[in-house]
Amino acid sequence: MKFGAIEAGGTKFVCAVGNEDGDVFEKIVIPTENPEVTMPKVYEFFKDTGIERMGIGSFGPIDLNEGTGSYGTIQKTPKTAWINFPLADEVSRYTGVPVVADTDVNVAALSESLWGNATGVNSCLYITVGTGIGAGAIVNGATLKGLSHPEMGHIAVRRHAEDTFAGTCPYHSDCLEGMAAGPAIEQRWGKPGNDLADNELVWEIEAYYLAQAIVNYIYILSPERVIMGGGVMQQAHLFDLIRKNVVDMLNGYVSSPLLTPDRVDNYIVPPGLTNEAGIKGALILAAK
Amino acid sequence: MKFGAIEAGGTKFVCAVGNEDGDVFEKIVIPTENPEVTMPKVYEFFKDTGIERMGIGSFGPIDLNEGTGSYGTIQKTPKTAWINFPLADEVSRYTGVPVVADTDVNVAALSESLWGNATGVNSCLYITVGTGIGAGAIVNGATLKGLSHPEMGHIAVRRHAEDTFAGTCPYHSDCLEGMAAGPAIEQRWGKPGNDLADNELVWEIEAYYLAQAIVNYIYILSPERVIMGGGVMQQAHLFDLIRKNVVDMLNGYVSSPLLTPDRVDNYIVPPGLTNEAGIKGALILAAK
Repeated sequence: MKFGAIEAGGTKFVCAVGNEDGDVFEKIVIPTENPEVTMPKVYEFFKDTGIERMGIGSFGPIDLNEGTGSYGTIQKTPKTAWINFPLADEVSRYTGVPVVADTDVNVAALSESLWGNATGVNSCLYITVGTGIGAGAIVNGATLKGLSHPEMGHIAVRRHAEDTFAGTCPYHSDCLEGMAAGPAIEQRWGKPGNDLADNELVWEIEAYYLAQAIVNYIYILSPERVIMGGGVMQQAHLFDLIRKNVVDMLNGYVSSPLLTPDRVDNYIVPPGLTNEAGIKGALILAAK
Repeated sequence: MKFGAIEAGGTKFVCAVGNEDGDVFEKIVIPTENPEVTMPKVYEFFKDTGIERMGIGSFGPIDLNEGTGSYGTIQKTPKTAWINFPLADEVSRYTGVPVVADTDVNVAALSESLWGNATGVNSCLYITVGTGIGAGAIVNGATLKGLSHPEMGHIAVRRHAEDTFAGTCPYHSDCLEGMAAGPAIEQRWGKPGNDLADNELVWEIEAYYLAQAIVNYIYILSPERVIMGGGVMQQAHLFDLIRKNVVDMLNGYVSSPLLTPDRVDNYIVPPGLTNEAGIKGALILAAK
């Protein structure tokens, strides 16, 4: 059987046709403009492909509740042209196949759990640190959803003693995303993270916030593995700083051999799938 | 079929024989002393009851990983006589039936989801605020576990502006439990919460910490309902203070009609099962 997959991101839509093993037969990348420009190109790509079902991993917030009548509709987002766009319904109408939707980070967690760096464990967390901070998770065999989808980037963090930055989040000012996403780094220091690689305090502060978040995620979700990706995590030295802070902050409270200085590098890891985590995860959504 | 159930708490062990519908046929309450005193009474109760399987909802920390060789063993706890006591193995050996173990708060979440105040939803969180703070959850049809079980009481919270109390947690000082469990209230104010019912600042500070935690739980887990029980929550006026703080702190970020001043009293609720949540949940563990 052939399935369709859409990775709907803030800068690009990736569309693919593939199978339940994650094999991609055809793929196209379309810039994210407004729906009137972007979506017709999406529909054109899937025309006559013979797909039976479609999976979408989307930027959020997106309604994932089947009982609301607005399943798969984009909610309020800084990408204002997309607010209230019924993504799943429209895709289903123009392609003629059923659509399953989830968040971009949940589908990335799904594909990492099948083919990436979270194989062999029953639960995992996938965190992306870039323009924003988001996370998805696999718990009890499925992606994590409920009242809505998680918004893990918006948890409160304690301020680093040397940090006076106000924070960038329009809703909470100094939540995790407001203090540690790429734009926060750039506004705090006056230049982007890529130009600050040698400034130790930049990364000490960054690791302090991200480690606090991971510690909270561990206390609340207890994932068996934590995967960290996104533009900010390209600063590879961040991994060891975060790992050290996580072990220090847990202070031995959670009994696990993985949460020790010797083993934590097997617990907090980069993604195993680089460019295709999202699109492969969306294929699996369709195939399930 | 008849099943056995044990609710293993810090002050008492409740043992019961019942069925998969949560009907309790026989029940006994045994004080929690050390294992050598308490456990023989437990085994005596289950002798010749004809049970086929046993469920245990236990205080923690407890190892719930089946691959470690120490499944169902109590880990380091202030109840030092119980450290490393192989609860599940010993119960299985003396009763001759298979044992399934989980945390006390996870089994309470389970029974609330079946017969209590979380029926009709697919996910829920059960928080107890008493001598300690703990929480269990139902996610994707099962209790929440992973690397270990959740330790949601130990997340970091931001300090209330008028609170200079150091915190009681031996691991993290001023984590949620260290600032908001019963002993923290008593040490901060010099008398127990029951004697402070009319002191507004006491409950304003308490609600501030608990609401922060619930907001983090919502961002991370997105439960469809939040149930709050335990001794501290007997101060019924706390519910409205917590609800108000949660709505204020979310600041409209999560789109849900339940997270509004009008509806939040249907979202953050007391338990529906009073004394029997734990033992009924343990029965279901056995019956599954």
